[in-house]
Amino acid sequence: MKITVLGTGIVGQTLAARLDALGHDVRLGTRDPAATLARAEPGPFGTPPVRDWAAAHPRVRLEPFAAAAAHGEVVLNALAGAATLAALDAAGADHLAGKILIDVSNPLDFSRGFPPSLTVCNTDSLGEQVQRRFPAARVVKALNTVNAQLMVDPGQLASGDHTMFVSGDDPEARRAVAGWLREWFGWRDVIELGDITTARGTEMYLALWVRMFGALGTPGFSVRVVR
Amino acid sequence: MKITVLGTGIVGQTLAARLDALGHDVRLGTRDPAATLARAEPGPFGTPPVRDWAAAHPRVRLEPFAAAAAHGEVVLNALAGAATLAALDAAGADHLAGKILIDVSNPLDFSRGFPPSLTVCNTDSLGEQVQRRFPAARVVKALNTVNAQLMVDPGQLASGDHTMFVSGDDPEARRAVAGWLREWFGWRDVIELGDITTARGTEMYLALWVRMFGALGTPGFSVRVVR
Repeated sequence: MKITVLGTGIVGQTLAARLDALGHDVRLGTRDPAATLARAEPGPFGTPPVRDWAAAHPRVRLEPFAAAAAHGEVVLNALAGAATLAALDAAGADHLAGKILIDVSNPLDFSRGFPPSLTVCNTDSLGEQVQRRFPAARVVKALNTVNAQLMVDPGQLASGDHTMFVSGDDPEARRAVAGWLREWFGWRDVIELGDITTARGTEMYLALWVRMFGALGTPGFSVRVVR
Repeated sequence: MKITVLGTGIVGQTLAARLDALGHDVRLGTRDPAATLARAEPGPFGTPPVRDWAAAHPRVRLEPFAAAAAHGEVVLNALAGAATLAALDAAGADHLAGKILIDVSNPLDFSRGFPPSLTVCNTDSLGEQVQRRFPAARVVKALNTVNAQLMVDPGQLASGDHTMFVSGDDPEARRAVAGWLREWFGWRDVIELGDITTARGTEMYLALWVRMFGALGTPGFSVRVVR
């Protein structure tokens, strides 16, 4: 399958590596590939330089947002929340129209340090902002409640016995994403929360996530919904 | 132990009944006991009339907020979020000073219908508002992430294999509450998140809770933090 991952941070690298390993035709979108590949220093949170990652994943081509988005039958937004709307603008509404856009981003605001607050919440969400800005895209919020390693390998924790959520206006798109989460990554318990306004729930859960990270001393945790 | 529960809704009724059954000396606080007992109609969400509950729990005296708060060595706030600050004002800062105040409330805003949004979130929380207003009280946020039945009987779900959170500035008070949650109700996995600002996390989790309620069709669920 032709899959585009937007964003070269740890989330983008991890998603693209896993999808590439599964044999998909993956492109990685960034603002300026030459500039991204020129950086030798680690990214935020110690993310390895993209050029090291790119050397280790020669099948995954790094392209500007628009070219990368044009390639994918499905597009994953793995950008930071603060960079998401501008990057999707650069990707271009025409390259997103009719496609499932899996939005993995969280509207984290680090301007006051750690733990972050959110740039949008309560009566709106980043998922809704993306859907409003790109009405022809089929936006599905997913994977934003765990760290990158758990996104692609839930089985590394509790034998995979924990829960992922999907939100989106298009029930068929939600179901497709739930299926891919199982098929690509091994998520066994996926709850379809409902329309894209339910992304408020998973994005606001980040406020608890960052505090659990603080209390537990590791980002390697998840929640199982018991019912 | 002398315990005060403020609020006669389903949460207050359920907490008071369980603590009474355990043999504690429980008083239930309300604005106007005579008026509360005069109501024959069910409360919000089908809560039984307080007079029926009171008849079934003769040891639990219904008192005005201030008298009830004066009684307890520990006070549980089981009021609706919107009613919390005014009711605690009526209870009186002097009757809360030095005591552990277990704040079970959530700042739910039903003014736009269901699902509710929050009246405060992101960079503040109701727990913090309570602590700022009553600086001599030892406020511990707890139990606000599950419905009333699960608060007092976590074992009814997944053999009790799910998680409760506590937040509060006073580490000794947090630890005491974690101990009571185990002893009174049987909570086996209690995570101390940290100071009262971590109540933002559990209160904002309600945005996910209400959406899960919608998707699962039952309030009888909880989360287990797997790590």
